[in-house]
This record gives sequence, C-alpha cells and structure tokens, in this order.
Amino acid sequence: MSPSDGVPISLGDLAKACGVPLSGDGAVLIDRVATLDGADKGAIAFLSNPKYRNRLATTRASAVIVSPEDAPGTALPKLIADNPYATYARVAAILHPASAPAPGVHPTAVIAPDARVAASAAIEAHAVVGGRTLIGERASVGAGTVIGEDCSVGADCVLHPRVVLYPRTQVGARTVVHSGAVIGADGFGMAEQDGRWLKVPQIGRTLVGADVEIGANTTIDRGAIGDTVIEDGVKLDNQIQIGHNCRVGAHTAIAGCVGVAGSTNIGRNCKIGGAAMIAGHLEIADGTVVSASTGLFESVHSPGVYTGTFPALPHRDWRHVASAMRRLRSIVERVRALERARSEEA
Amino acid sequence: MSPSDGVPISLGDLAKACGVPLSGDGAVLIDRVATLDGADKGAIAFLSNPKYRNRLATTRASAVIVSPEDAPGTALPKLIADNPYATYARVAAILHPASAPAPGVHPTAVIAPDARVAASAAIEAHAVVGGRTLIGERASVGAGTVIGEDCSVGADCVLHPRVVLYPRTQVGARTVVHSGAVIGADGFGMAEQDGRWLKVPQIGRTLVGADVEIGANTTIDRGAIGDTVIEDGVKLDNQIQIGHNCRVGAHTAIAGCVGVAGSTNIGRNCKIGGAAMIAGHLEIADGTVVSASTGLFESVHSPGVYTGTFPALPHRDWRHVASAMRRLRSIVERVRALERARSEEA
Amino acid sequence: MSPSDGVPISLGDLAKACGVPLSGDGAVLIDRVATLDGADKGAIAFLSNPKYRNRLATTRASAVIVSPEDAPGTALPKLIADNPYATYARVAAILHPASAPAPGVHPTAVIAPDARVAASAAIEAHAVVGGRTLIGERASVGAGTVIGEDCSVGADCVLHPRVVLYPRTQVGARTVVHSGAVIGADGFGMAEQDGRWLKVPQIGRTLVGADVEIGANTTIDRGAIGDTVIEDGVKLDNQIQIGHNCRVGAHTAIAGCVGVAGSTNIGRNCKIGGAAMIAGHLEIADGTVVSASTGLFESVHSPGVYTGTFPALPHRDWRHVASAMRRLRSIVERVRALERARSEEA
Repeated sequence: MSPSDGVPISLGDLAKACGVPLSGDGAVLIDRVATLDGADKGAIAFLSNPKYRNRLATTRASAVIVSPEDAPGTALPKLIADNPYATYARVAAILHPASAPAPGVHPTAVIAPDARVAASAAIEAHAVVGGRTLIGERASVGAGTVIGEDCSVGADCVLHPRVVLYPRTQVGARTVVHSGAVIGADGFGMAEQDGRWLKVPQIGRTLVGADVEIGANTTIDRGAIGDTVIEDGVKLDNQIQIGHNCRVGAHTAIAGCVGVAGSTNIGRNCKIGGAAMIAGHLEIADGTVVSASTGLFESVHSPGVYTGTFPALPHRDWRHVASAMRRLRSIVERVRALERARSEEA
Repeated sequence: MSPSDGVPISLGDLAKACGVPLSGDGAVLIDRVATLDGADKGAIAFLSNPKYRNRLATTRASAVIVSPEDAPGTALPKLIADNPYATYARVAAILHPASAPAPGVHPTAVIAPDARVAASAAIEAHAVVGGRTLIGERASVGAGTVIGEDCSVGADCVLHPRVVLYPRTQVGARTVVHSGAVIGADGFGMAEQDGRWLKVPQIGRTLVGADVEIGANTTIDRGAIGDTVIEDGVKLDNQIQIGHNCRVGAHTAIAGCVGVAGSTNIGRNCKIGGAAMIAGHLEIADGTVVSASTGLFESVHSPGVYTGTFPALPHRDWRHVASAMRRLRSIVERVRALERARSEEA
Repeated sequence: MSPSDGVPISLGDLAKACGVPLSGDGAVLIDRVATLDGADKGAIAFLSNPKYRNRLATTRASAVIVSPEDAPGTALPKLIADNPYATYARVAAILHPASAPAPGVHPTAVIAPDARVAASAAIEAHAVVGGRTLIGERASVGAGTVIGEDCSVGADCVLHPRVVLYPRTQVGARTVVHSGAVIGADGFGMAEQDGRWLKVPQIGRTLVGADVEIGANTTIDRGAIGDTVIEDGVKLDNQIQIGHNCRVGAHTAIAGCVGVAGSTNIGRNCKIGGAAMIAGHLEIADGTVVSASTGLFESVHSPGVYTGTFPALPHRDWRHVASAMRRLRSIVERVRALERARSEEA
C-alpha cells in the first residue's frame, strides 16, 4: 500500500542515519512506517502525542520511535528521540524515498531553443519551457507544466504536473510546487476612473526561495513594480492566494485556503492557520501565530496568538446571539444607564 | 441555446421513463426543459418552490412537472411527482443527454506502455496516463489531464480536461471530476525542529468512491500514512480543499470554497454550506448540517444545524458592534456588579 | 528587471500620449516606471497616497506624476494629473508594453477541423480548440489551454496557459483570463431523493463580456437552465468562485478568494472585498461595497458599505469574548430583568 515498501533496513542502521540513540535489538529489520494501531511485523511507528500513549502497550510494530520520557513505557526495540515526530519524518524518508523521474526530455515536451536545461533534469510529457529559461541540475518538470520565458528553476526542484510559472519567475533549489499552482500571474492592480477600471501593468516578478513547498492550486501573484518574495523554507499548503508585492518570511508555514492581500509583509517563523484572511499593506511580526479562520486587518507588532472567529452554535442559539449582536450597542447603553441611575441614587 | 435540443419525445413517454403519473394530453411533444417564465412551445418546466406558484398560470410551457398539491392549479398537460425537482432532473437528462467523446486514444495522448486502457474508453488530446494505471470501460479522460502511475479510474468515469491524479489514486465508477481538480497531492505534513520544517513523507493514498462528483479546482490530499477516503455518492462543489486522512461519508454534499483540515471524519448524508471551514481531527455525526461561512472547531456528536457567522451590517453599525464586542467581557462584569448590588440591597 | 525596459521616450511625449499637462523639462528621457523610493535616473514615479508625500523630496526619479495639489511640492519635471494613479497606469502601459506572442498555430496545438481561428491569432503549444469554436483576431491562446466545442473567444483576448473553457462558453473582446481559470463547468445542481443526490443537468452557458479580467484559478460555473453572465469591464481576482446563473454587473470588481453562490445578481460598479462570501439568490444593488471577509446572506437594496467581520484579538482576550458571546442571550435577559426591577421600584 505504501509507495515503495522496499529494501528492509536494520533498526541500528536507522538509528545511525538519524543520529539518535537505539535501545533494544538493533538487528530487527524494518521496511515501512505505520501508525501504532496499524503497524505489524516489519513496521516502525512513533509516539508523539501523549494522548496515544496507551497504544504503546498494544502496538504490533517491530520497533517504535519515542521520547526519553516514553521510552520506559515499552519493551519494544526503539529509537529514542527528543522530537519523535521529526525523527519519524527522517525514518519515513529513508524507508519510502520519493521516486524521481528519469533524466531527459520527453519527446512531446516543447523546449525553446535558447532555454538551458541541465542534462540531469527530467522534463515530462507535454511540458513547455520558454525562451532563456534555466532548469537546474536534477530538477523535474511535470507533465503539462508550463514555464514562461526568462524563468529559473533551481537544482533539485520538483514541479509537479500542470504547474504554471509566468515569465521571469525564479524558484530556488529543492523547492517543490504542486499541481495547479500558478506563480507570477498579474497582480490585481487597477486604477478607477469614471466608473471604469484601468489595468495597471504588473511589471515586477515573483521570487521563490530555496526549500519552499507550494501546495496544489495555490496562486502567488508577481509584483506590481517591485517583486513578490517567498523566502527560504516557507511552506504553503493548498489553495492559498498571495497578492502582489507580499513578502513571506523564511520558515513561515501557512495552512490551506489562506488569502493574503497585496503588499503585506509576513515575518519569519510565523504560523498562519487555515482559511485565515490577511488584509493588505500590513506588517506581521516574526513568530506571529494567526488562528484558523481569523480575519486580520491590522498589523501585528508583538508576536503572539491572534484569533477572531465566531463560535459555531446550534442554529437556534446562533439566531439569538446574532440578534443580540445587532443590538449590542444599545445593550451597552442600557447597562450604562443602569449604572448611572445607581450612582445617582447612591 | 441548450447543448442538445434534439429529438422530441412525447409527454407520455417521459412519464413512463420517469415512473410518474401523467395528467392531460400525453401526445404533446417535448424537446427541451425551461423555467416557468422562460418556457414556450415544446418546453417542459417544473414547479418546486411554492414561491413561484403564481407562474403556473402564465407559463407558456407545453407541459409542467408539479406536485400532487399543485396539480389542480394548472390545466396544462403535466407530470405529477412527489418530488418535482428530482423528476425534473430525470426529464432534463433524457432531453439533454451529455455528449460523450468517441472511444479511442487521441494520437497526442501519452499512454505508458504498461497502462491498461479499456478499448471503449476515450482519451483526449495531450492526456497523460502513467504506468500500471487502469482506465475502465467507457471512461473518458479529458484533454490535458494527467494521471500518475498505479492509479485506477472506474468504468464510466468522466475526468474533464486538465485534471491531475497523483500516483496511486483510485476513482470509482461513474465519478465525475471537473477541470483543475487535483487529487492525491502531498498532505501538509511537517515536523518542526529548530525553527525549520522537515517534510513528513506522505505515503498514503486518496480513494474516491463511485458516483462521486468533484468540482473545478477542488483539491484532495492523499493520506500521510493511511488513506484519504471520499465515499460513494459524495458531491463536492468547486474550490474545496480536503486535507490528508480525512474521510467524507457517503452521500454528503459540500458546497464551494469549503476547507476541511486533516484527519477529520465527516459522516454520511451531511450538508456543508459554502465557505464553511472545518478544523482537523474532528468527528462530524451523520446527517449534520453546517451553515455557509461557519467555522467549525469542535466535533459534532448530535446532528443538527450548526451556524457561526457574523451578521453583515452597514459599516457604521458594524463599527459600533465590533467595538462593543472587544469590551464584551467588561460588559458582562458590569452586569454582574449591578446584579450583585441589587441582591445586596434586597 | 522589468519586462521590457526599452526605447526611452521624452516626458513631453508621455504628457501628450496621456493627455495631461507637463511641468518642467519635457525633453527628459524616461524608459521605465518605479516607486518614489526605488527610482533613479530614467525612471518616472507617481504620488497618489498623501502618506508618501514626504518621499517627493528625496526621490531620485527623473520625473514624477502628481496631483495639482502636490505639484508645488517638487521641482522635478512632472506630469500633473487629477488622478495620478490612472495616469501612472497609462504611462506604465506605454513604457512596458505586454509582449504578444507571434500569430500562428503551434504545431503541437490540436485544432478541430471545423474550428475557425483568425489568421492573426496565436495558438501556443499543446493548446486544444474544439469543434465549431471561433477564435477572434489577434486573440492569444496560451500553452495547454483547452477550449471546448462551440465556444467563441473575442478579438484581442488573452487566455494565459492552462485555462479551460467548457463547451459553449463565450468570451468577449479584449478579455484576459489567467492560468488555471475554469469557465463553464457544471453548476452544483442536485436533487435530493431518498438520501441520494440526483444530478440536475446543467444546460445553460457562461457568457463573459468584453474588457473583463479573470484571475488565476478562478472558477465560473455555467447556468443550470439560463446563463451565467459576467458583464463588460468586470474585474475578478484570483481563486474566486461564481456559482451557476449568477450575473455580475458591468465594471464590478471582486477581490481574491470570494465565493458567490448560485443565482445571485450583483449590480454594476460594486466592489467586493477579498474572501467575502455571498449567499445564493440575492440581489445586490449597483454600487454596493462589501468589505473583505464579510458573509452576506441578505439582499442589499440600498448601496453602501456592508461589513461583518469578527475583530481579531489576542487569543486570551478572544476566549473571553467568545465565551461571553455564547451567553449573550442570557446577558440581554439579565439587563432586561435589572431594568424591570428598577422600573417596578420607581
């Protein structure tokens, strides 16, 4: 069921590869990862969330990855890691390596004569690479992906099928872009005159750093005059919209369905929850956390967790709350009147 | 104006095909559907919403579909149905059959040598079918659609142009997938370590049942370890995002722009309104209704209608309400103080 | 860095081309636009937002575009415009003309024998044009774009790579459609019967006017019986979803991530903020403004600004507010009880 259940590896070798201590029989052979509940012989599972601690006793895994605190809780062969989830990520990458397409250009791909494609790159069926574009070593360009003119795609990038890079887009090394993503389209810039909209040419670019991941059907517009910048190590989930001239700081993670309007600067190491909506021209401090579904309309100067969601209620209760909300101003005034009356009496 | 105004059929034959009673002249010929207002000779219209009942008197349709209660309200030839809208759906499907592409593989399509494509399937221009993938009888694969390795596409499926199925995705019989949908992309799984994100390999699959419909630009990520599952008869509108390891129960309908974070189980026969946002790791009971634009952050154990939206107000009124909301805690305290003062007096 | 830094043009010629007064040396040569801060020799910048007025003193631009009020604030050669941003848009279009692909059909494009493609149109690699479809003069159809049967694409349209037009879609002259947009997919129409969903054939069309812009990954469904209509001059940002049978009035602008449910009529010259969600079957008056992130569930008969967003708060404060909101009904009752008690005493 897994993509590449393959060559078994000993637990001892996994410990060495991950740089974590081993406890128990290092000769046990592991060929796949699994959940504690779903595991059986040959599988390694991990415990990260204390909520699942009792599953340690019943798992049929051949080995587990646990924290030092949880290690005494199981007699199974184990890797002991301060961050079991991170060690799990490394183990899974060893046991289930992503399959890379073979180097070479598919005969149906259309490559401009003056594009420069590394010999070690893989260009799949029906891909299109524009003039003067560079495709780096070992990069892969999926089927039907269209890359405009004057782009650069760094070494070891993976562009999945049906990505679009508009002209002059730059993508750093090892960055992964999922299907349907559109990078570098025109920003939404228009001048209003006499009830009509005049298009403002969008002459900037989109610059995507190294080690970035961009989810399926995410869109990142290019800059109006300057550039839209996604810094190194940023992780963007699916169906995110980033407006023109935004900057997303290094190692910030943004969950699915988030919208960021133009010219907003999101700091480094921020975490933005799913479906949050961030207005334009804001400054968001490094390390800020925005909760899911929260609309953010003001800059954030002190990092912290920011939330603004309406709690879901049974519909009948919601009707009463919504009705009271519409009258909230008068309620405040009535409370004030009561207070005033009391203080006059006193 | 309609796609296939075609061979007229008698009202009597329509009644038989739909299994509903006929009233009036069964010989009248019908060649298309229309609204009550837009209909004229040759058209059949339906009345489902009582709000439009008065239009029965003025419609120029040749026949109508009505409920038993509304039947006496018109002298026109008619089909009498307990569920006029469902009967309308059947009649429209008879009068306006979807045009199916001719079987065969377009010469520009790229089919892996070890893919197995049914002879009755239609593979359109520039489609790509990966190794070991199965394409079922009478399935159609639209222009530019990319299907990865080890997928299966059931009989009578329709994949519209420019769909992507990542490797190992399974799609059941008669399922329709609209353009731009991306099924089986990597889930958003990352382990944080020292301010960096480590990618967690996503080794599960996406399994889509039979009779499902998936809207344009909708994305469904594959599972992290286990699978993401969309059960039979689920209907997904456009631009929906379903996170890794979700399960959507049979016959649930989800309107456009909804986001569902990872590992959430949505029950059977649920209805999720447009732009609702559902957090991860929740359990939503069978038959639950979530209103449009509602953020759901807790599991739902008793089915019912759940709502959580801020009522839109004229901007000036909203400013007052929003300002009062920020002070809501102090208002509650002031009410309590007034109550306390009163009870002390009493 | 800009797409086409090119032939310099004198400030005097720019003034003439834009029909605005010149002040200062009209012979100064300009070859690109820039921001006030980023400009240097050869660049023209503009001042529209009074907040940046102090930058006029320090800019190194060769010329500026300013309002009559701001003109005395700088000794630089300048264009004086009532609407500096609109004049900037014109100047930028002159200095940075969009590059048009050369006319002709790429050999890998697949054009139905009975499609009619103007000789001056450009059809790029791997594009697909269906039977009986018309492609107008000087239109360009991007790489991998798929146009169904019986469509029409007006003169001077630009369809960027990887757009999909479903059969029978019409697009007016000079309209621009960005990558990933899907126009004319099936609306979300289903009749419920016995816990199952019966598909309602969607037999209408999508009609898009002239001078429209449609953003990346935006979706517009075709009508159920009648048509979905996007009138002239409408501007749609990225990732917008427009349901079946909607009408969007001329010159309305809609920002990114907005959803509009089916059968809603949005008037002319409306402005809809990002991530707003508009319910189905509404009438929105001409000139209405809907704020970002606002859910609109009732028709708007008097134009104005409508807002309904929950203010984002530090998470701890939000918890208190959310908790008070759940009890809002009882708070209202307690205030009423206090008022009653007082009035009985009086």
